[in-house]
Amino acid sequence: MHHLATSPHKISAKGYSVFSKDSKFTPFEFTRHPIGEHDILIEILYAGICHSDIHSARSEWSEGIYPMVPGHEIAGRVVAVGSKVSKFRCGDYAGVGCMVNSCGECEACKCSHEQFCQRCVYTYNNHDCFHDDEPTYGGYSNNIVVSERFAIKVPMNAPLEKIAPLLCAGITTYSPLKFSHLQKGQSLAVAGFGGLGSMAVKYALKLGAEVSVIARDDRKKQAALDMGVKNFYKNTKDITERFDLIINTIPTKYYLSTYLKLLKYGGEMAIVGLPPLEMNPHISAHELVHHAGCKVYGSLIGGIKETQEMLDFSIEHDIFPDIELVRADQIDEVYEKLTTSNANFRYVIDMKTLK
Amino acid sequence: MHHLATSPHKISAKGYSVFSKDSKFTPFEFTRHPIGEHDILIEILYAGICHSDIHSARSEWSEGIYPMVPGHEIAGRVVAVGSKVSKFRCGDYAGVGCMVNSCGECEACKCSHEQFCQRCVYTYNNHDCFHDDEPTYGGYSNNIVVSERFAIKVPMNAPLEKIAPLLCAGITTYSPLKFSHLQKGQSLAVAGFGGLGSMAVKYALKLGAEVSVIARDDRKKQAALDMGVKNFYKNTKDITERFDLIINTIPTKYYLSTYLKLLKYGGEMAIVGLPPLEMNPHISAHELVHHAGCKVYGSLIGGIKETQEMLDFSIEHDIFPDIELVRADQIDEVYEKLTTSNANFRYVIDMKTLK
Repeated sequence: MHHLATSPHKISAKGYSVFSKDSKFTPFEFTRHPIGEHDILIEILYAGICHSDIHSARSEWSEGIYPMVPGHEIAGRVVAVGSKVSKFRCGDYAGVGCMVNSCGECEACKCSHEQFCQRCVYTYNNHDCFHDDEPTYGGYSNNIVVSERFAIKVPMNAPLEKIAPLLCAGITTYSPLKFSHLQKGQSLAVAGFGGLGSMAVKYALKLGAEVSVIARDDRKKQAALDMGVKNFYKNTKDITERFDLIINTIPTKYYLSTYLKLLKYGGEMAIVGLPPLEMNPHISAHELVHHAGCKVYGSLIGGIKETQEMLDFSIEHDIFPDIELVRADQIDEVYEKLTTSNANFRYVIDMKTLK
Repeated sequence: MHHLATSPHKISAKGYSVFSKDSKFTPFEFTRHPIGEHDILIEILYAGICHSDIHSARSEWSEGIYPMVPGHEIAGRVVAVGSKVSKFRCGDYAGVGCMVNSCGECEACKCSHEQFCQRCVYTYNNHDCFHDDEPTYGGYSNNIVVSERFAIKVPMNAPLEKIAPLLCAGITTYSPLKFSHLQKGQSLAVAGFGGLGSMAVKYALKLGAEVSVIARDDRKKQAALDMGVKNFYKNTKDITERFDLIINTIPTKYYLSTYLKLLKYGGEMAIVGLPPLEMNPHISAHELVHHAGCKVYGSLIGGIKETQEMLDFSIEHDIFPDIELVRADQIDEVYEKLTTSNANFRYVIDMKTLK
């Protein structure tokens, strides 16, 4: 058990952390910054385990900030509110995703694209420039202090354990479908059928698209077909149809042009999953011109306003991830499973199990 | 002087060709296939010199087919028509661009995106699958036989020497402005200010956009400002504004992400200029996600229907390239000039000078 010094008004917290890119998770005690006028304190009840937690914990995208408490799919109960909080009352349910603060004044913030704010503070593995650059700690823990602007309202009758993963997997896949204006009857392919891919399928079907899945593991075929997917492809070579939109969630090595050439003229590919840096897929100007008229772009989670919209849409249409509840002491085991096969459901930590 | 064997009904032609990637241009005699029912014979009066002619002649994109007669910016007079030709009569003006044939039956052809037809025949440096795979020879010559489907109608009062470059430089820049739905008042940057770049500027200004130019050679600044350009940037580092659309015409080494980051959220970059293969710019999935919400795509000339639309638009609004007429024996000299500095006007061969 590790301890960090505490000071008056700071909030004591405990969770699970790694101390280096190679370490296992161990219990960890730390503090959260005091509850400011616009902050709320959330007792975390559930935290989803996202593939990007693994990339971050293992320093696969960039050098991590350790000790690291991952977790940016957070759902819980509001247990304290600052004096100027208006959106929440104690007892409410609330969710927190990938961000906990931003400047609130720049062009990006004004458009509620807070993820593009130069001062955006990520939920973990970041330094909080609004709080003396303290390191941020994520959702594998018993509580979090967050500006109410970055907390998502969750109705009291919602299945809270399934709400947690929506805060990253949900918004990350909902946002590009909206950004690319997916229309009823259009054809969509989801590449990669893990936590992100299965959410993309659910939203796209609800939006009226014809959905295909491209995934190397054909043991997932039946699950995809049962969801209402039209075609399941194990191999891009077998694909003769052309798509209006591809949501690419693949977290390992692949060739971008292999997918770009599956688009119709005027089609678009959104990249929402990122492999480790050393497998970083590239596409060249010559390939882009060879597949002329096909657009590619990256999509990065989504803004707070859109996250609330996604959550409301999900609840209205009963769109939730399939989940498996795990204990807090099982995180290493889950990481191992997710590394070998990208599950098409979400592991969610039941925070009652945190000792 | 080189000669190729001729056969009855074939059309004798003469022009200038290279015989290897390192050779100079020399006079060359050859034949064109006979005039089919749907073909027209055009006496070439003017042929533009395009930067891609240089890339092709020097095998910079792929191994060239030699002897090679480049030239895909062709304007001239119809001197013979096949029995079923309906679009042209002898004496009409006509233009030919980058393509001379396609299957006419596939999805791409049906949408008049002939450049994406699997059997599309390029004007030179290609084999014509509709004529016994004979090599195609381009516009640095005295005539061409072409299916009327691939000939563009040119009114008799048009300035024919300025029409020629529109058939490639015009359509290549007009097409992405339409594809990206450039709106009045939107901000556009044109990267590279050569033959393509200056046409992009002219069309974008006419469409009501606020236009900036990014070009390394600031001797072109005054010319750009005189055209009505708002800002001229020598260096991307100096740019603080963000653009709705970037038309990237740069034919040399550059970094794609340097330009992608100049886009607004939701902005697009069209790549229309291609550097030699060994300088082929790349962009990675991580960079795309880092500049999330910014789309990149390649644009490849334009279809025949859109080429006619572009030509009609250009004539209606008096939009033509600035040109400099050269003699047929000056091609090597022009290539040398274009390699060292990308002129913001078009060199056009006056075919009267062909001996």
